[in-house]
Amino acid sequence: MAKPVINHRGPEFRELYRRMLDNLKFVFETKGDVFVFTASGTGGVECAIRNILSNGDKIAVPVNGVFSERLRNAVTAFGGKGIEIPIDWGSAITPAQVEELFEKEKNIKALAVVYNETSTGATTRNLKEMGKICHDNGALFVVDAISILGGDALPVDEWDVDICVAGSQKCLMTPPGLVMLSVNDRAWKVVETARRSYYFDLLECRKFLANYETPFTPAVTLFYALDEALLMIREEGLQPRYNRHNLCARSLYAGLEALGFQVFPRAGFRSQVVVAANYLPKVDDKKFRDLLRERYHVVVAGGMGKLKGTMFRIGVMGTVSEFEILTTIGAIESTLVDLGIRFEYGIGSRASRDVFGKQN
Amino acid sequence: MAKPVINHRGPEFRELYRRMLDNLKFVFETKGDVFVFTASGTGGVECAIRNILSNGDKIAVPVNGVFSERLRNAVTAFGGKGIEIPIDWGSAITPAQVEELFEKEKNIKALAVVYNETSTGATTRNLKEMGKICHDNGALFVVDAISILGGDALPVDEWDVDICVAGSQKCLMTPPGLVMLSVNDRAWKVVETARRSYYFDLLECRKFLANYETPFTPAVTLFYALDEALLMIREEGLQPRYNRHNLCARSLYAGLEALGFQVFPRAGFRSQVVVAANYLPKVDDKKFRDLLRERYHVVVAGGMGKLKGTMFRIGVMGTVSEFEILTTIGAIESTLVDLGIRFEYGIGSRASRDVFGKQN
Repeated sequence: MAKPVINHRGPEFRELYRRMLDNLKFVFETKGDVFVFTASGTGGVECAIRNILSNGDKIAVPVNGVFSERLRNAVTAFGGKGIEIPIDWGSAITPAQVEELFEKEKNIKALAVVYNETSTGATTRNLKEMGKICHDNGALFVVDAISILGGDALPVDEWDVDICVAGSQKCLMTPPGLVMLSVNDRAWKVVETARRSYYFDLLECRKFLANYETPFTPAVTLFYALDEALLMIREEGLQPRYNRHNLCARSLYAGLEALGFQVFPRAGFRSQVVVAANYLPKVDDKKFRDLLRERYHVVVAGGMGKLKGTMFRIGVMGTVSEFEILTTIGAIESTLVDLGIRFEYGIGSRASRDVFGKQN
Repeated sequence: MAKPVINHRGPEFRELYRRMLDNLKFVFETKGDVFVFTASGTGGVECAIRNILSNGDKIAVPVNGVFSERLRNAVTAFGGKGIEIPIDWGSAITPAQVEELFEKEKNIKALAVVYNETSTGATTRNLKEMGKICHDNGALFVVDAISILGGDALPVDEWDVDICVAGSQKCLMTPPGLVMLSVNDRAWKVVETARRSYYFDLLECRKFLANYETPFTPAVTLFYALDEALLMIREEGLQPRYNRHNLCARSLYAGLEALGFQVFPRAGFRSQVVVAANYLPKVDDKKFRDLLRERYHVVVAGGMGKLKGTMFRIGVMGTVSEFEILTTIGAIESTLVDLGIRFEYGIGSRASRDVFGKQN
């Protein structure tokens, strides 16, 4: 990122962007188009929704946490009719519920699903089946994969995902500021007839793509960072990468459960990129996280929305390895001691380590 | 930018953002609110327009180049009625023309002006008078200062600017990816009653500002860069900074004119942050700029829109000094020699140098 900024209308930029898009297609596993926007993840959500929406269109959104609420809000913010499917927080929608939706509601333009609900640590499973049901019913399938792409499987073409959104700062291990979208032919047909956007206009992006440029000045230094991250991802390979995230997450779940923490997401929906657990009784959110950060240099996130104060969340993303996981569990044990919680010291670390041991 | 990314909901970020906003208020010369968005400059234009617009509202835009066209397009993209005031490219609107506008058109909600038209090198003068006329007529005064804030005077409060937009990558000498907006009380009254935005929602920003946070994940590494740049700007002082840009631009104009180039903007509208000139006859745009870049490592921009191929533009922004100006003029002279143009070699460099000499 410290390299000099280059002209985004010059030959060096076009070479950079072309390589990045090739590598992004590898990660998205798509032959469709891919674009990079300078924005936070929520900008990508706006882009996905606004570009397929005309006034009054119905877009269905399963709501099981803060980020799916945000996705639903994007629908209504742009004049769409948000069909909310309420799902228990900590759980996620199933293909049977998607079937049910299309039986009850007609003329749904799209189903938009948050693949990984970072606020609860729940991952939606069986996306492939959902994509098929959407297309059988003439609806688009939109997936918000902001926090998970690059950390768990998402073969966009094979799973029939028409628009997929990913963020730079999660499993793609790049600083925040970029959001990536894939768009397939089925989605283009809708985008071409929908109301136009402005900053997030996909048709404008496609026009500039012909020349490997972006419509507006891109965050060049972040492009450098994402370019390098994508080369690292290709080097590692997708499946080894997903396996690594899975192993690290399982180790963390094992350590936390050995310490008596109750994992937040229901069985079958546990994320392998973010691990959420309820606090033990008598553990104060602020005290716990302040101690962890100040004394042990481990930063974990608190609960969001209605879960604020009752749980904490640990990112398992990007370059994460055994080292970070064992350091984190060790720091949590030390913090519990500091807080005067009685437990068998070392039991969490041993459980975490055992998971790696079995695999090594 | 190479520092580790911090949690944007943690205490370190709040300290960083608070300091940045203080220093931005110093640069904008405002006591109003200031916000930073993760986006290209055009995202800031969308933000300024969308947050004051309800369906059918009239917003007047003087159009004298590519970026004011873009501003006008933002108005119509969000359901507004764009009142276009056509102005010769290379010139800019005058207070008399603003008076005339309000006499002809009633119920104008805002006048939105591009302060510095980067596509033509023309700067709008007498903004202060225009602000007063707007307010006498009950309209907001919106200024797109993306390419000029930090390089030429713009005391937002004194000049009655209600919403001002600035970009990171121009005179604020930070890589691209951030856009800053100031909003005063007069603007807030309108924002509170206008249709809500989503990614660029100002009311949401104000809510998070109470805690020195942003609604969505910010581009933290770019925040580091802008923070440092703002400290450098405070160190230099605003007036010395504007004087330096003025001196550098005058030197460049003198050198180009000595070489026979016709400066593009009309007298009285010459920008001191971007210098645009028409090509000499027989000089090919692509050949000229390719040679400059490849042989002399000087990157200049070509013409935009209808000016493509007929002119070139040189940025005079940020850390620019005598060194960059004389290097550029020298490189242009060498390129003209390479292209077989006959002229008195050294005449441009001498004219450029003389401007600095007179001041030193």
